[in-house]
Amino acid sequence: MSQSDVGSDLPTPCLIIDVSRLRANVEAMAAHARRIGTALRPHAKTHKSPAIAALQRGAGAQGLTVATVSEAEVFASAGFTDLFIAYPVWVDRDRGRRLAALRERARVIMGIDSAESARALAAQLPGTSVLVEVDSGHHRSGVLPDGAGELAEQAARSGVEVRGVFTFPGHAYSPGVQQQVVLAEQHTLETASASLRRHGIEPTVVSGGSTPTAAGTAPGAMNEIRPGVYVFGDAQQWELGTVEPADIALTCSASVVSRAGGNVVLDSGSKILGADRAPWATGHGRLLDHPDARIHQLSEHHAVVSWPEHTPPPGIGEHVRVVPNHVCNAVNLVDELVVVKAGTVVDRWPVAARGALT
Amino acid sequence: MSQSDVGSDLPTPCLIIDVSRLRANVEAMAAHARRIGTALRPHAKTHKSPAIAALQRGAGAQGLTVATVSEAEVFASAGFTDLFIAYPVWVDRDRGRRLAALRERARVIMGIDSAESARALAAQLPGTSVLVEVDSGHHRSGVLPDGAGELAEQAARSGVEVRGVFTFPGHAYSPGVQQQVVLAEQHTLETASASLRRHGIEPTVVSGGSTPTAAGTAPGAMNEIRPGVYVFGDAQQWELGTVEPADIALTCSASVVSRAGGNVVLDSGSKILGADRAPWATGHGRLLDHPDARIHQLSEHHAVVSWPEHTPPPGIGEHVRVVPNHVCNAVNLVDELVVVKAGTVVDRWPVAARGALT
Repeated sequence: MSQSDVGSDLPTPCLIIDVSRLRANVEAMAAHARRIGTALRPHAKTHKSPAIAALQRGAGAQGLTVATVSEAEVFASAGFTDLFIAYPVWVDRDRGRRLAALRERARVIMGIDSAESARALAAQLPGTSVLVEVDSGHHRSGVLPDGAGELAEQAARSGVEVRGVFTFPGHAYSPGVQQQVVLAEQHTLETASASLRRHGIEPTVVSGGSTPTAAGTAPGAMNEIRPGVYVFGDAQQWELGTVEPADIALTCSASVVSRAGGNVVLDSGSKILGADRAPWATGHGRLLDHPDARIHQLSEHHAVVSWPEHTPPPGIGEHVRVVPNHVCNAVNLVDELVVVKAGTVVDRWPVAARGALT
Repeated sequence: MSQSDVGSDLPTPCLIIDVSRLRANVEAMAAHARRIGTALRPHAKTHKSPAIAALQRGAGAQGLTVATVSEAEVFASAGFTDLFIAYPVWVDRDRGRRLAALRERARVIMGIDSAESARALAAQLPGTSVLVEVDSGHHRSGVLPDGAGELAEQAARSGVEVRGVFTFPGHAYSPGVQQQVVLAEQHTLETASASLRRHGIEPTVVSGGSTPTAAGTAPGAMNEIRPGVYVFGDAQQWELGTVEPADIALTCSASVVSRAGGNVVLDSGSKILGADRAPWATGHGRLLDHPDARIHQLSEHHAVVSWPEHTPPPGIGEHVRVVPNHVCNAVNLVDELVVVKAGTVVDRWPVAARGALT
């Protein structure tokens, strides 16, 4: 049975994991982290699945990264006790109560990027470990690296324990910039660390990394990396050249439902692929076995494909494998992932932290 | 309490319905359908919620439109017994079994746009009522209107019962084209109906409509309309000018989590707003109470807002109301909708057909 026949009896659309590829990706990143001498704290928002977090832990990950308190709750319930919420969480009363309960069963580190957030956190959860978020060029959240020390000092005075700095080099999700972003990230973390030291705080955690920058990260640039997408890969990473199509471990099994107007119309719409489309993306996802095909129109339940002229298009009812542009958002659209090994469905893993917004 | 204070104790991000606006929108579309003399069969994929479908039925909707067999199953279970699956469903064995069970408890009409689909449907569910999908210019699924009669005849010979024609004028989701698309839609449905008659089939259902085209639809152009988004409105409709901001009934309550770099960063990322952004959209959603603000960057857990210079920006921890670009995909990202009336949370409605992909 060829890979493209896998799951041909499954109702479409659904998300399928090739577990051999997944394991290879998990091992490869763990080996890379060992080689460059950093801790590996994968971002669990990609898979949202305790089963995959367990593989990461088994390969040597030293904890997990999450984005929300509710993601932390899901993974703590599943037995993961070392969690970094890499987000400037606003700790209102509800989150304060929940974080207090969470700290009974897990070590929780929080992100901060403002004195206000640090004060709100310290008021409810004094002594919480935090990392100061710094902006390495993505211009989303995070203070400028030179300002990290001042914020760290303010935060420490508020009553939290500043452990170090972190950044997310999200501007690496663009073609041809990875090496430049790796250098910016490294420089940012060095500058921020020096800024903390000038304010009398020795950073013990210097955390960066992402899937597109991981390969270029040099030994000594940071002591922790937090890639997420690498477990599966996706069409963005494929088009950035940071993941090989042969290593992509998650695809959407889709049926051809229409051949109207000479197009190939699939039932994998934005309701399972997600609507993410970077300005540089060549389409709304890619077909793993047909790299010259392009999804030129996407609505909730339809993906309209321009089929390459030299290849016979599939007929109505046939299945194809679609690679989502951004796998994290795709995984968040299903309740379970179908696990396939050597052409056979061997398991179904719940997306336990689907939703988990607050 | 002002509208913008509503739900200020709710953990963010969450989706909030202003039930008075929702009811007004439901009533207004029902009144419009009566005025132009068409049946109203709202698309339930927008709300995915039996509670809202019940309001639509109460206002005179003559059935529901859905996009998948599993959506039909959810609404049939909730007591809705007149369902049109407006999609060229490929009826494999699994769907055949499920549709057979569904037909025990509901009247189900299916869409078709190919002889293959009609044959597959007839082989498992002979006598099923179908509408032939025609393309009115969106170029997604659907046959050309002149070919509708030939397909209808083939389908009828296969053993399904052809009841008429339908189209989705999705190309109306673009600025300044609504009137032109309304005319194209009307012409398409007339041509397709004539084509059916030439093949000896009298269309009893002539179905079109969408939120952006509904207002322009003239009496006699069709005998059924299927708008969806109108119940809530969204930033796309706001920017198209087809919904007034004062009528928008669903917003995402979001907290300011960062003020880094002078921006206002909200916790309403693509994981609750959806990642939809049409090429003509001014941003990744709009702020209901700050029409001059723009969300210029969106990632899964961050919305980065350019705040207008003349207005004082909100501080960290404050709440704002964000209007998703495309409300259908936003609703699909939550398990429940928080229902607010006159500033008070009065209910929570489950998004019963969230997911419902197959």
